[in-house]
Amino acid sequence: MSDARPRFLHGKAGHAPLFISLECLKPRATLGIVTSVTPTLISALQSALSPDRVLTQAEDILPYSFDGTAALKVRPGAVVFPLTSEEVAACMKLARAAEVPVVTRGSGTGLSGGSVPIAGCLVICLTQMDQIIEVDEKNLTIHAQCGVITKDIDDAAGRVGLFYPPDPGSMKISTIGGNVAENSGGLRGLKYGVTRDYVMGLTVVLADGTLTTLGNKCVKDVAGYSMKDVFIGSEGTLGIITEVTLKLVPKPKARKTMLALYDSMEAAAETISAIIAAKIIPCTLEFLDRVTVQCVEDFAKIGLPTDVEAVVLMETDGHPVVVEEESAMMMQLARENGAREVRAAADDAEALRLATARRSAFSALARLRPTTILEDVTVPRTELAHMVKFIRQVAEKHRLQVGTFGHLGDGNLHPTFLTDERDHEEMQRVEEALEDIVNETIRLGGTVTGEHGVGLAKKAFVKRQLGEASYELMRSIKRALDPQGLLNPGKIFDL
Amino acid sequence: MSDARPRFLHGKAGHAPLFISLECLKPRATLGIVTSVTPTLISALQSALSPDRVLTQAEDILPYSFDGTAALKVRPGAVVFPLTSEEVAACMKLARAAEVPVVTRGSGTGLSGGSVPIAGCLVICLTQMDQIIEVDEKNLTIHAQCGVITKDIDDAAGRVGLFYPPDPGSMKISTIGGNVAENSGGLRGLKYGVTRDYVMGLTVVLADGTLTTLGNKCVKDVAGYSMKDVFIGSEGTLGIITEVTLKLVPKPKARKTMLALYDSMEAAAETISAIIAAKIIPCTLEFLDRVTVQCVEDFAKIGLPTDVEAVVLMETDGHPVVVEEESAMMMQLARENGAREVRAAADDAEALRLATARRSAFSALARLRPTTILEDVTVPRTELAHMVKFIRQVAEKHRLQVGTFGHLGDGNLHPTFLTDERDHEEMQRVEEALEDIVNETIRLGGTVTGEHGVGLAKKAFVKRQLGEASYELMRSIKRALDPQGLLNPGKIFDL
Repeated sequence: MSDARPRFLHGKAGHAPLFISLECLKPRATLGIVTSVTPTLISALQSALSPDRVLTQAEDILPYSFDGTAALKVRPGAVVFPLTSEEVAACMKLARAAEVPVVTRGSGTGLSGGSVPIAGCLVICLTQMDQIIEVDEKNLTIHAQCGVITKDIDDAAGRVGLFYPPDPGSMKISTIGGNVAENSGGLRGLKYGVTRDYVMGLTVVLADGTLTTLGNKCVKDVAGYSMKDVFIGSEGTLGIITEVTLKLVPKPKARKTMLALYDSMEAAAETISAIIAAKIIPCTLEFLDRVTVQCVEDFAKIGLPTDVEAVVLMETDGHPVVVEEESAMMMQLARENGAREVRAAADDAEALRLATARRSAFSALARLRPTTILEDVTVPRTELAHMVKFIRQVAEKHRLQVGTFGHLGDGNLHPTFLTDERDHEEMQRVEEALEDIVNETIRLGGTVTGEHGVGLAKKAFVKRQLGEASYELMRSIKRALDPQGLLNPGKIFDL
Repeated sequence: MSDARPRFLHGKAGHAPLFISLECLKPRATLGIVTSVTPTLISALQSALSPDRVLTQAEDILPYSFDGTAALKVRPGAVVFPLTSEEVAACMKLARAAEVPVVTRGSGTGLSGGSVPIAGCLVICLTQMDQIIEVDEKNLTIHAQCGVITKDIDDAAGRVGLFYPPDPGSMKISTIGGNVAENSGGLRGLKYGVTRDYVMGLTVVLADGTLTTLGNKCVKDVAGYSMKDVFIGSEGTLGIITEVTLKLVPKPKARKTMLALYDSMEAAAETISAIIAAKIIPCTLEFLDRVTVQCVEDFAKIGLPTDVEAVVLMETDGHPVVVEEESAMMMQLARENGAREVRAAADDAEALRLATARRSAFSALARLRPTTILEDVTVPRTELAHMVKFIRQVAEKHRLQVGTFGHLGDGNLHPTFLTDERDHEEMQRVEEALEDIVNETIRLGGTVTGEHGVGLAKKAFVKRQLGEASYELMRSIKRALDPQGLLNPGKIFDL
């Protein structure tokens, strides 16, 4: 494993920034794999697919040199666009024979560098595998190719009165295969869980090019180890997910969106505890802190007061009677716990406006300074108020500007440092602040990444969180499933 | 892998019978591990625990020579009763140093031979690790040692208004660690999922005796592979689960139990489809066929009519208004789809009586003939009516007596063959019938085991279901995590 100290890489507004070790991007000389795509491999790939689905020219390849992490650019040797699982298997077999590392990608919206290429590698871009194969209304499942846009999955479900709950921020552009590979979260985690909770089956191309299916449409299945769960969230390091079978649920009949404004973060956290204590599990409990609210209001002009300490966006869904009862109770609990103002969205349009404001938090923050460092720490829900306060203290201690937003119900926080990569002294302070936050997160029994993944961004912290034994377990799985280290090398950990 | 033809082993009434390869029980000569517990190891174990928690005498060991599969008896070399995770780790280290295979067990209620010892092995019995460590009402979690009885988990949750939904038939005696190791199902799978869906964290002793924790209390966590999911359902073959952290949910405020009687199985299946099409997800949809109903009525005398083709037990839970609405709709749909009679339980006592009738199905059937062969096939819900009919035809074709009951909502069927082990010719016909059922299950995209596990009972079928690639993936995980093959050898597959 590399012991290199993490350094910063940075995004422009609208892109994701990173906290990253540049060591990660070196070819895997340690394992002897330094092979780049060769003319022979390109020619074989052109025969296996078709010449127009194999990109090799510098200008064509450029857009596939990075993912959501704009500043991280590494040029691959070639980019291919398979249309079927069999074509993916063929590409993998050819790459393996040539000992060329493979990096897979969907839309490239990832926020941890998971799709950033290795120099000279083969990028398998799965966006053209965009067919929904079956919506099975009776078994409550959908079967799709990996390149289908996540929102299209939910839309297809919606047309038969069903619902695909996981809603990562990127759902309008990210692919379902990418979501499964990253085990994406979203705004509804507390009530509905995350992507993993909806995966019933996968088609996977293994490191040796073998095509296999894992799982099925059965609600219960204990025939052997749950191999699909090994691949979900493995960030492309164990196999290439080419098709998915997902569980759907009935679409909630009603939904109500509310807004609560607070003069203290503690009061906001108290409200969340009170809601849970009342045995209510809302589908959404999002919050924005003062800095974030000011940026969002400046950006989106939706009439949020800019002198509050916290804005909490609450949503409940389900049967109309339950929604009415729960929303009334939630608003009452917010008032009882010190909310300055509580109101329900008057209609769908206002609810959408509020949700959009929350979703624009990162973009709004990113406008303020040249460089934005986005965090993804998650703590047990009871530690939330403490953690938000701790982040503010850390920012003060290191004289940094930070805006925090995130998922209160999940304990998933996105503290966002607003800085300037050209100011090395300030960047040093950001590094120290992130160290403090990561250490406190681990001390509280939290995780260094709730939904963005490890990729390159969190490699330096994973072992500290998991401990030696658990970390070595992961590495032994990687060695067992990808002994040559060809799949997305250098992501999550080094072999 | 052993290519031995499966043979029958058999249970007496009240015990689980098996369809099993006797090859499984041989010491693992192929890997050179034939070591039995030695006096030196016993002495070391006595020092590590205390002498009274190390059993070595034949009469003391006898009760640990089998699990829920009565006819399968293999005497271990010793049985130990650790009290803590550290003691389990110490035992594992000693066994490993002596190269003695280890078989773990909780209450021994398993129905697939997963806890049947290897001759001369060390049995680690975890029933004395029975402490509930924490009920965290605010984070909606419970943390317990592996030996806590499953029902005690739910009772502890219930005392703070929470609920642990998985309810395997054995929940009054089975341990939570056993449930996690087997990924146990139960009667509420369709709405609430299975054990896996509630596991947030595990403490595990690995094959080399290392103690590690996996997961945490965070609702979202994507820091590396989900190693906990590798151990859930691995049937003790990858590590020893010593502590669990489980997710709890608010207790439903209301519940309603209904009964529908049918003159045809097709009509019962149509009702289920109609309920799902109406976007209702009931917590329970159980059924008993005519043979089973007759046995249950004869056994429990609860007033069920014995001339019906199918009895369906339906339950919905949640908010009182929703329960009223859904139960009315379910009863109407049952009538519209041909139910001869539909009624709601008048009160909790009647609801309990009906649920108990369903839970007594196997015991009631087992009274009829000396030997009972219990199956656990599961198919996509839409294939249920076909599968029930197929089972009946197979029984007729092979001139066998079969009673079928199971979970309609989950597609999980328990066809139960009533036979006599002493009649070799009849047993041959049972074997052929089971082959037919397994093949049809696989053809329909189903699984050979929905909730009972592979253990020794389903080893012969797993590869057929999963296919070569997926099967080999599992074996590579086993080799990576237990290279010496010491943990529960011969279960699920042979190395």
